[in-house]
Amino acid sequence: METTMKTKTLENLFHETLKDIYYAERKILRALPKMARGAKSPDLKAAFEKHEQETQTQVERLQQVFELIGKPARGKTCPAIDGIIEEGEEALEAFAGSPALDASLVAAAQAVEHYEIARYGTLRRWAQVLGMKDAAKLLDATLQEEGATDEALTKLADGSVNQAALEAA
Amino acid sequence: METTMKTKTLENLFHETLKDIYYAERKILRALPKMARGAKSPDLKAAFEKHEQETQTQVERLQQVFELIGKPARGKTCPAIDGIIEEGEEALEAFAGSPALDASLVAAAQAVEHYEIARYGTLRRWAQVLGMKDAAKLLDATLQEEGATDEALTKLADGSVNQAALEAA
Repeated sequence: METTMKTKTLENLFHETLKDIYYAERKILRALPKMARGAKSPDLKAAFEKHEQETQTQVERLQQVFELIGKPARGKTCPAIDGIIEEGEEALEAFAGSPALDASLVAAAQAVEHYEIARYGTLRRWAQVLGMKDAAKLLDATLQEEGATDEALTKLADGSVNQAALEAA
Repeated sequence: METTMKTKTLENLFHETLKDIYYAERKILRALPKMARGAKSPDLKAAFEKHEQETQTQVERLQQVFELIGKPARGKTCPAIDGIIEEGEEALEAFAGSPALDASLVAAAQAVEHYEIARYGTLRRWAQVLGMKDAAKLLDATLQEEGATDEALTKLADGSVNQAALEAA
């Protein structure tokens, strides 16, 4: 159902943003296996594989939120995540065979994580204001996972990936 | 100078990512006045105006980093920021005249901030690994500002913007 301009509410904005992140999560789900295959470091490969599993659960949580608001789980094209993933793919191609490849993969993945952190942070706050406690809880669970993934990537970068890029150069 | 695939190093990756964020910052600089004009809340308007000033300084810091690595300050198209800003403009149009407009502007701005936090966080770590202390310091100064801007936006959202969207609905 389309609403007219004047009646657009915070509920509409919540729904639109939910569709945005639903599209994004499913796009990320398709990108992660490529990133895992591209990674040279076994630890980085394992991190992408772990996050693929998490992302599957995150998609299911979004489906539960759609159910809670009585709407079909449907995405809408999200040019932001399309752009972020396009840049990651460009880097994967440009740095194939380079010692800096893993460093570029970590950078791409952290750009993805931060997009998600922004969106889930916003959605969680809107859910709270709208009194949707169950939705807020689901969104918060994913937000915590995205934050932990971002931190794990930073640790990998600092612990080995950046140094490896340097030493092999 | 183009480098062949095999010789691509962390220095190349640093330079490519610097061009990416340089393009992004200048695009953000053009978007901020539109966001300030669109905002209904005087506090939100003031926050965008303040961040426009900061962004000008951030562009200049990037120019200094280009100088430190002996390269011309030149951007390269960043599909990620193009997508993020496109979504913000769509929301600005779709929610014009709606009580949820400011909430949508905050969400768009926080997506921008998180993209920058990801990129500056990565660039700062690479600068440190590459032994470029002055560059790391410049990048860190901007990273701190982006983090503070993101926090200020969260405070505005929690303090008044989200509630206003709800009450007027």
